Amino acid sequence: MKRTALLVFVSTVTIAVSAQQMKPESTEWYYPQPPKIVPAANIGQPPSDAIVLFDGKDLSKWVSADGSAAKWAVVDGGMTVTQGAGDIYTKEYFGDCQLHIEFKSPTPAKGGGQGRGNSGVFLQSIYEVQVLDGDNNPTYVNGMVGSIYKQRAPLADAYTKAGQWQVYDIFWKAPVFGTDGKLESPAIITVMLNGVLIQNNYVLKGTTEYIGFPKYNAHGRLPLMLQNHGDAVAYRNIWIRNL
Amino acid sequence: MKRTALLVFVSTVTIAVSAQQMKPESTEWYYPQPPKIVPAANIGQPPSDAIVLFDGKDLSKWVSADGSAAKWAVVDGGMTVTQGAGDIYTKEYFGDCQLHIEFKSPTPAKGGGQGRGNSGVFLQSIYEVQVLDGDNNPTYVNGMVGSIYKQRAPLADAYTKAGQWQVYDIFWKAPVFGTDGKLESPAIITVMLNGVLIQNNYVLKGTTEYIGFPKYNAHGRLPLMLQNHGDAVAYRNIWIRNL
Amino acid sequence: MKRTALLVFVSTVTIAVSAQQMKPESTEWYYPQPPKIVPAANIGQPPSDAIVLFDGKDLSKWVSADGSAAKWAVVDGGMTVTQGAGDIYTKEYFGDCQLHIEFKSPTPAKGGGQGRGNSGVFLQSIYEVQVLDGDNNPTYVNGMVGSIYKQRAPLADAYTKAGQWQVYDIFWKAPVFGTDGKLESPAIITVMLNGVLIQNNYVLKGTTEYIGFPKYNAHGRLPLMLQNHGDAVAYRNIWIRNL
Amino acid sequence: MKRTALLVFVSTVTIAVSAQQMKPESTEWYYPQPPKIVPAANIGQPPSDAIVLFDGKDLSKWVSADGSAAKWAVVDGGMTVTQGAGDIYTKEYFGDCQLHIEFKSPTPAKGGGQGRGNSGVFLQSIYEVQVLDGDNNPTYVNGMVGSIYKQRAPLADAYTKAGQWQVYDIFWKAPVFGTDGKLESPAIITVMLNGVLIQNNYVLKGTTEYIGFPKYNAHGRLPLMLQNHGDAVAYRNIWIRNL
Repeated sequence: MKRTALLVFVSTVTIAVSAQQMKPESTEWYYPQPPKIVPAANIGQPPSDAIVLFDGKDLSKWVSADGSAAKWAVVDGGMTVTQGAGDIYTKEYFGDCQLHIEFKSPTPAKGGGQGRGNSGVFLQSIYEVQVLDGDNNPTYVNGMVGSIYKQRAPLADAYTKAGQWQVYDIFWKAPVFGTDGKLESPAIITVMLNGVLIQNNYVLKGTTEYIGFPKYNAHGRLPLMLQNHGDAVAYRNIWIRNL
Repeated sequence: MKRTALLVFVSTVTIAVSAQQMKPESTEWYYPQPPKIVPAANIGQPPSDAIVLFDGKDLSKWVSADGSAAKWAVVDGGMTVTQGAGDIYTKEYFGDCQLHIEFKSPTPAKGGGQGRGNSGVFLQSIYEVQVLDGDNNPTYVNGMVGSIYKQRAPLADAYTKAGQWQVYDIFWKAPVFGTDGKLESPAIITVMLNGVLIQNNYVLKGTTEYIGFPKYNAHGRLPLMLQNHGDAVAYRNIWIRNL
Repeated sequence: MKRTALLVFVSTVTIAVSAQQMKPESTEWYYPQPPKIVPAANIGQPPSDAIVLFDGKDLSKWVSADGSAAKWAVVDGGMTVTQGAGDIYTKEYFGDCQLHIEFKSPTPAKGGGQGRGNSGVFLQSIYEVQVLDGDNNPTYVNGMVGSIYKQRAPLADAYTKAGQWQVYDIFWKAPVFGTDGKLESPAIITVMLNGVLIQNNYVLKGTTEYIGFPKYNAHGRLPLMLQNHGDAVAYRNIWIRNL
Repeated sequence: MKRTALLVFVSTVTIAVSAQQMKPESTEWYYPQPPKIVPAANIGQPPSDAIVLFDGKDLSKWVSADGSAAKWAVVDGGMTVTQGAGDIYTKEYFGDCQLHIEFKSPTPAKGGGQGRGNSGVFLQSIYEVQVLDGDNNPTYVNGMVGSIYKQRAPLADAYTKAGQWQVYDIFWKAPVFGTDGKLESPAIITVMLNGVLIQNNYVLKGTTEYIGFPKYNAHGRLPLMLQNHGDAVAYRNIWIRNL
């Protein structure tokens, strides 16, 4: 009895205090101030805080897997996969980021399925957003252009056609690992292809595996990697913002 | 009994699918096929599956709060907040969506803080992405342009200046409520302003409240609403994709 | 058997990948940039981002409980508790903050225990850091100068004597409440008195209560309050930084 | 049986102490008495219970890593990093503490990023608060002055410039390990730089690592260490209070 009475009393006070003390100012915050960033005059071009990874001229921001100079060809303002030149990695390491990158499938189109215009944008070197010629080119849906390779098909197929530049806008949250190497929060990705939302905050199951299940192995910041799958895919206008 | 048997079965299967038995095909899926969408030639323009809510000519997709015709002015290809004309709502109701909308603060700039170029994009009529003239116009950070009003400051301040069109790209997951009206999953939002990521999958605490805490009340699909806060803010190029 | 073998295999891979991929860059972050703040030439004076609440001249930043002008006396650069003038509140509302405030007990000292030089610094109007003449003035330890009143005695007694200015540096984390009014994280305080740490990240049990237990009632930002306990305590050099 | 009886008893007591039975005295405690400490006349100078580790004259409280006499230079009241003289350690071992320490970056400034005015204050020899010339000297934010090196950027950038003394006030809670060596509570730090709060009760992930993740290895009290990174950083007015 006593206890019930007490609880009712406290509850009444709670409501009374809460209602009379709330004012508009109670939910207004002045700190911290977000950083001022100057967007590009044309959306898709790098804003003021972006790190430009390729500006159409040289591969100075990139290296091969063994640390030697990147050997892809720079042609017509695009950097292009070259036979025998391997994958290329940014010199700089990244974690959470906003990435803008454009790619073009080779023409005339050759091969089919995974054999036509295959390459890949590997966030932190080990999580792939698939690059493929997606124009009338059937393949498994979690391997089509815009898929998180072997994990997640895109929400929509917004590819146009070979020879036209395709635009990826990617928001990436890196996985977080505890000091014991255990996963604390998984990688998460949002992707637009040509302005169409195709992955909306997809929670990755782990690294990209060709055979077997994705898994998580502890790591820190890592380079962005672009895959050499033997097809002459070109990339341009690559910039990244640390988040 | 049956239940125990099932659990044993599942457990056995899991163990059996070990690495040495996996083939590439084990993780390739062919169904369902994502819908084919034709992106716009210029990113920012509506792709093929978008519902155009304003094309620069008329307010036929919009109504006032009482259901009567929307009374904002259409000037120079923009629809503009008009004194006494109230907020406007889409006739169509929306849930999960990709929304593109552009706005312009009035010139010459008048007033300061919340009194300069104030309006708002209300997803489902009750969750606001703040619209404000953000050019050298200090206010509380969770009330600045790009904020989820009174909940979340933007990650960056990517506004340019009054008289220039500002571009919002918004990805919205509507909250989900159970049949008993209880919240099952909250609203989630991602926002780009002028191509810069400013909200990354922010989980909303509830509806937008001027005084007091956000809260969730069960609801279904609702109109998109644009706020009349008395300032002559203009909107254009509004399109939405159901997700 | 198989299962055990598989787990061992995965574990080995994990270690191998982790070791070979870590470089110094893997743990270096460039964003976000902390704001640049210009400290005062003399520590204790307001840094560049501080809001000065009293500069020795007037009470323009303060009001009485009923919203009328604050009626404490301004004498010799200090604002002083005045009989019948009640508690005073800042016009502005605060949450997380760094607060610098100096106080002086009246001379000659009169009364004893809680009756000598009693006042209080109330964070968010309802959480008190006790102000008292602490020079040879025995009282209960959780009510002495530097205590979180009726909750926590100070770690040390670093008060000097009446007539000398005493310096509080306070770091405050406001309690956070969910949309249902439930406590999500409690208030936390760190206090230095005259440069000596006397409260180190103390987790408050709730509001300051003269009779009964502390409790938490949902609220948002609230004014800083200074208590009128009838003794002519003076305050000066009051500034606050939003965190 | 016994256990049940006890629970009932406790429960009854709780209920009995209801509001109407509480008196002011019910929440007043007289023991233990905090120790009386005489603060310095000028805040920043050592209070009465501080251990002075450097008073501007000699290095008698310090040794090299091999236990030999510390070989840094004493110049103009500061002890200065000397080429080839290695890191220096206090002879005394410390756990929880309040540490005051001032440092000065060499002039004229040479080098950039981590190469300009680099040194470090290592709590318990293995947890670093970064020392760096922070005047227009971009580097990774979790390696800038005031960072918990490679773990946590400071809340604000309150450094002034080379040639001026910078003031750290640090509150340290040592990690606690169980008898089995397992971490029971992590290290926690609060830091002010020049009177501005820059770390507020940050919970450390572990030791400072240049490559790889922080980790915790069981240890007890350990010396304070100052790093020799090859730059002629000077220190002065170093005092510490055991907490």
